[in-house]
Amino acid sequence: MSTANTTFLILSSVLVLFMTPGLAFFYGGLGSKKNVVNTMMSVFVMCGLAVVLWVICGYSLSFVGDFGGVFGSLSALLLHGVKLTALTSTKIPTSLYLIFQMMFAVITPALFVGAVVGRIRFKFLLLFTVFWSIFIYYPLVHMVWANGFLAKMGVIDFAGGTVVHIDAGVTALVLAYFLGPRIGYRKGKQEGHYSLPWALLGTTILWIGWYGFNAGSALAANQIAVQAVLTTTVATACSMITWMLIEMSLKGKATLAGICNGTLCGLVGITPATGYVTVAGSFWIGILAAVASYFFVNFLKARIGIDDALDAFGCHGVCGIVGSILTGLFASRAVNSSISINGLFYGGGFKLFAVQLFATLFSVIFTALICFLIIKFLKLFMKMRVDVKEEQKGLDFGEHGENVDYVISLTLEAYQFEDQKKEFFQDEPNNLKEVSKNSKDTLNSTIS
Amino acid sequence: MSTANTTFLILSSVLVLFMTPGLAFFYGGLGSKKNVVNTMMSVFVMCGLAVVLWVICGYSLSFVGDFGGVFGSLSALLLHGVKLTALTSTKIPTSLYLIFQMMFAVITPALFVGAVVGRIRFKFLLLFTVFWSIFIYYPLVHMVWANGFLAKMGVIDFAGGTVVHIDAGVTALVLAYFLGPRIGYRKGKQEGHYSLPWALLGTTILWIGWYGFNAGSALAANQIAVQAVLTTTVATACSMITWMLIEMSLKGKATLAGICNGTLCGLVGITPATGYVTVAGSFWIGILAAVASYFFVNFLKARIGIDDALDAFGCHGVCGIVGSILTGLFASRAVNSSISINGLFYGGGFKLFAVQLFATLFSVIFTALICFLIIKFLKLFMKMRVDVKEEQKGLDFGEHGENVDYVISLTLEAYQFEDQKKEFFQDEPNNLKEVSKNSKDTLNSTIS
Amino acid sequence: MSTANTTFLILSSVLVLFMTPGLAFFYGGLGSKKNVVNTMMSVFVMCGLAVVLWVICGYSLSFVGDFGGVFGSLSALLLHGVKLTALTSTKIPTSLYLIFQMMFAVITPALFVGAVVGRIRFKFLLLFTVFWSIFIYYPLVHMVWANGFLAKMGVIDFAGGTVVHIDAGVTALVLAYFLGPRIGYRKGKQEGHYSLPWALLGTTILWIGWYGFNAGSALAANQIAVQAVLTTTVATACSMITWMLIEMSLKGKATLAGICNGTLCGLVGITPATGYVTVAGSFWIGILAAVASYFFVNFLKARIGIDDALDAFGCHGVCGIVGSILTGLFASRAVNSSISINGLFYGGGFKLFAVQLFATLFSVIFTALICFLIIKFLKLFMKMRVDVKEEQKGLDFGEHGENVDYVISLTLEAYQFEDQKKEFFQDEPNNLKEVSKNSKDTLNSTIS
Repeated sequence: MSTANTTFLILSSVLVLFMTPGLAFFYGGLGSKKNVVNTMMSVFVMCGLAVVLWVICGYSLSFVGDFGGVFGSLSALLLHGVKLTALTSTKIPTSLYLIFQMMFAVITPALFVGAVVGRIRFKFLLLFTVFWSIFIYYPLVHMVWANGFLAKMGVIDFAGGTVVHIDAGVTALVLAYFLGPRIGYRKGKQEGHYSLPWALLGTTILWIGWYGFNAGSALAANQIAVQAVLTTTVATACSMITWMLIEMSLKGKATLAGICNGTLCGLVGITPATGYVTVAGSFWIGILAAVASYFFVNFLKARIGIDDALDAFGCHGVCGIVGSILTGLFASRAVNSSISINGLFYGGGFKLFAVQLFATLFSVIFTALICFLIIKFLKLFMKMRVDVKEEQKGLDFGEHGENVDYVISLTLEAYQFEDQKKEFFQDEPNNLKEVSKNSKDTLNSTIS
Repeated sequence: MSTANTTFLILSSVLVLFMTPGLAFFYGGLGSKKNVVNTMMSVFVMCGLAVVLWVICGYSLSFVGDFGGVFGSLSALLLHGVKLTALTSTKIPTSLYLIFQMMFAVITPALFVGAVVGRIRFKFLLLFTVFWSIFIYYPLVHMVWANGFLAKMGVIDFAGGTVVHIDAGVTALVLAYFLGPRIGYRKGKQEGHYSLPWALLGTTILWIGWYGFNAGSALAANQIAVQAVLTTTVATACSMITWMLIEMSLKGKATLAGICNGTLCGLVGITPATGYVTVAGSFWIGILAAVASYFFVNFLKARIGIDDALDAFGCHGVCGIVGSILTGLFASRAVNSSISINGLFYGGGFKLFAVQLFATLFSVIFTALICFLIIKFLKLFMKMRVDVKEEQKGLDFGEHGENVDYVISLTLEAYQFEDQKKEFFQDEPNNLKEVSKNSKDTLNSTIS
Repeated sequence: MSTANTTFLILSSVLVLFMTPGLAFFYGGLGSKKNVVNTMMSVFVMCGLAVVLWVICGYSLSFVGDFGGVFGSLSALLLHGVKLTALTSTKIPTSLYLIFQMMFAVITPALFVGAVVGRIRFKFLLLFTVFWSIFIYYPLVHMVWANGFLAKMGVIDFAGGTVVHIDAGVTALVLAYFLGPRIGYRKGKQEGHYSLPWALLGTTILWIGWYGFNAGSALAANQIAVQAVLTTTVATACSMITWMLIEMSLKGKATLAGICNGTLCGLVGITPATGYVTVAGSFWIGILAAVASYFFVNFLKARIGIDDALDAFGCHGVCGIVGSILTGLFASRAVNSSISINGLFYGGGFKLFAVQLFATLFSVIFTALICFLIIKFLKLFMKMRVDVKEEQKGLDFGEHGENVDYVISLTLEAYQFEDQKKEFFQDEPNNLKEVSKNSKDTLNSTIS
């Protein structure tokens, strides 16, 4: 047993677990105030639900046995017969590999919550997640990471392009399509965000945790892990700066919400490639991920007309696809000799590129199809969406009977008013001041 | 010297240190707005106070020398004569073990702050903590972890059931009893929470940090540490989901505050058992901790009539007791051969169970008794509780002269109004909207 | 390759990266509400900008080649020719050392943001940071840590007194001088802080991250690293408690903002000394750092008349100077045999003290001078400060077109009113209550 690798993987697992509440803060901060509790809870509950499910059947269906290269088996239900203390090839206990993978099974379903906030029934989401894990996530893990048919084709996915981001992103889109848009979405009437510091905190925790995700996927504290740390950092920084420069060029001002998005795009984009590419490769992947996501979110999304509320597809889907495909271009055996062939740009010809393209397409179609079936099935038994009255009031009260806080905010109409102003980046009448000026008058008159 | 174990313990210590501010956010988020600064500060100040005290006499009284199996000695005051670079049995420097244990001495007194918020004088709390550390915490550490009389009896406590959670929980109850309830507590008139995202952040940081606490207690990156990571995760997830399902069954809706509580119950419950039990054991411990705490907090607490404001006893006391006793049932030599006897359910007979039961009772009585004496003694010299006027205004201004922020909130009466409504889970008149509708009218009239 | 040291340095690098957003929360929480987005973004953007710059030329200018002991060279632009997998003396990959140092290059320019919030143009800050990194930071790294002329003189700086805190602090002062004070500064008319919990969260993350900073600077998980953890903790705790006791003595009440400041002072003060001093040394350094910073911020600052808004110099500059000089007194070869001579208090005579004094003075003058030149140069092409109208409204809207949230706050006049009250620590008329009483009346009349 390698105590160093064990230390590394324990701490990587902790970092990956940290990502899920990080995502809760990111989504909660960007959503509207009346849905903050519901948004954060929908993400955080995965830390319970997905762990229990993983112990019951997830590990078994992912890593034990094989049916046609697509499924694992049910022979290790409740971890029955799993030799937890047996060592893996990097000399860590099997139980630790099980824990590390468990954390991936937690964060992945949490990603698509971003698309459905503000209107999905909490119970529907819980049940959907159970089916989704069993019929989409565990099979994909098996196909790509447990020597399933995609792995045998030569598909490479270092830390989860196809397995994590593409399936979560596509699921987000399908769910949002079936749910329909939020009230007022088509008219552009949405309330402003709850709080940008929470969004930044979420971004931050996600970034920090991502080192567990990406470097940890080397399963040992080796040169590949260090390369993953380096390429992850470079891609993320490039993506953040790219997003900022695009905003400055096209809108005149860079936004905090924007650079948070840009940060995540880099992290997602580099994920499948992180242990396979050079610094130069990560540089380009970061830039291209930001460009692709920016143009999807700002131009294409409106045409598609699906209300992916917090851009779960726009970020994770788009950048997962970009990253998976670019891995076929930038992968280099000089960086990681475990791959059998170089990417297109490193002299390996079109083979890896074609394989990555196929895996990307396959995971998009597979996810969309099974997702469609699960939704159709569940809708036979239960409603997917909350009723109009509840949606207008907010799901915090409707689904959970809670208020995020007891602070007084501006109304939707006031939000709208400000947003219209902002579109032109003109001077803003000093709304908050005026409102609170009124409060102050009250204050003064009360005091005197 | 093992560099891997040293790395593991350094990072575990950092994680445990992180827990204390995590607790500050958890308590601060759940408390009322006028006491947020005081609550957070009362917890965070332990990071200074308990560290200084540990260096002055805590390490010595806990780990150096022995008086009757109950106390250490004062021979290593100010770390005098401690060979910091000497290696322990897991090949880490003694200074690192000292640091790791120091972090436990920081978080433990922070736990009981949850019971006394909103009315205890800050200076009383500081002084009480000094006496409490010297006369309750260091002795318990000595008795259980420094080969004191409880250890010699065969008591096992992997990461702090008796030493951390039971004493903190019982202290919470005794302090709350002597302080008396907050104004309006008996009439159910309490303001709502400050902010649920802060409570979730606190829960999150506590969870993350708990891996340092539980796995780090193996003092090496070995199979036991990995088992602790696994059982901690499983117990916590089971506890969270259990709490959620109870709420859904009994109240119709699951709350974020609820699943945060459930999460903590699992973490507390598994703590004494984490390195001794199987995954199955952790499963049951998680469930039972949630059930016990839920019924205490929702049914028993009201009968006892002690205002344990943020359920420091309801969570840490109850689940610490549950976990310590269940360790006597679920401990298994197959998991950890360092223990001499199996628990009741693993064929070891009643012996370990009886020992654990005794240790639990002993730590409850010992803590309650000494706590009583400390309070009586301190009350000779100073007041324990702030005056009524200060309590009504909030301790943030009264004790610290600070406001947490300058945002306008609903009043207590408005909180009450909403809470009454919620009890029936009926439709809520859209208070916030109406209030801010008024603001909007102001806004519009000001703009036009 | 040492897998344990690699694990340690990967995780230390992640911790140091975490510090920068931590600083964003600290500054954002203490600043006024209208500038929160701008403040947080100005800090967080360094995670992108400084990383890209480091890869392009920073590493090369710092660590590759040598010109006169002051500069590195441009021979490794874009990491050209850097053997990333080559091992360093502690058997970690060169790429990992590059990553660790990269994180220092991120946090250092973020520190001076605290002095300039509320009035500097975002684009000016970005450009200034580029020049500052190239002409101040990389040279200082080279001089002290890459065997440049200061290192050859015998200057010791374990984790960044001269290299990180003095240069950032002095830069803060020079920038604030050229910017001029915020509107209303001279009259004491400043809005209150945005939110103390965010300031505490920032402090917390900084503290946690600082272990990566200080212990990681040992570049191996060895006895020195453990000593750094211990001295960092002790100094920080002493500094926090010292600040608290000073406040209690002089003002009658201890504040949360105060103990956060005290915490940071200890962290900064111990940084240059952390791997060289005993626990006793760290004890005194912590106390003296708090005392020096307290008296600077509360007494000297007003006389100087420079508006260092969030005390970037008052904390980092002052404590960096104190720590660097005290290293010359407290350094001990018994702790760290890599230094050639003991400090004054450990029998080494005046030599180390004199060298440290020189290095401190040199870095102050060097930074101030180059800073002056960069500002003068940049002002030829662009404005440094936003216009008055934008400043009054806040830079969140002016520079980024964003609102931090949509919550209603008290106005500046109301802040002032409260602050005047507080100065005397008299009873506060219950402003918030009264204001919201008004809201409640509205509420009741609306409901009924």
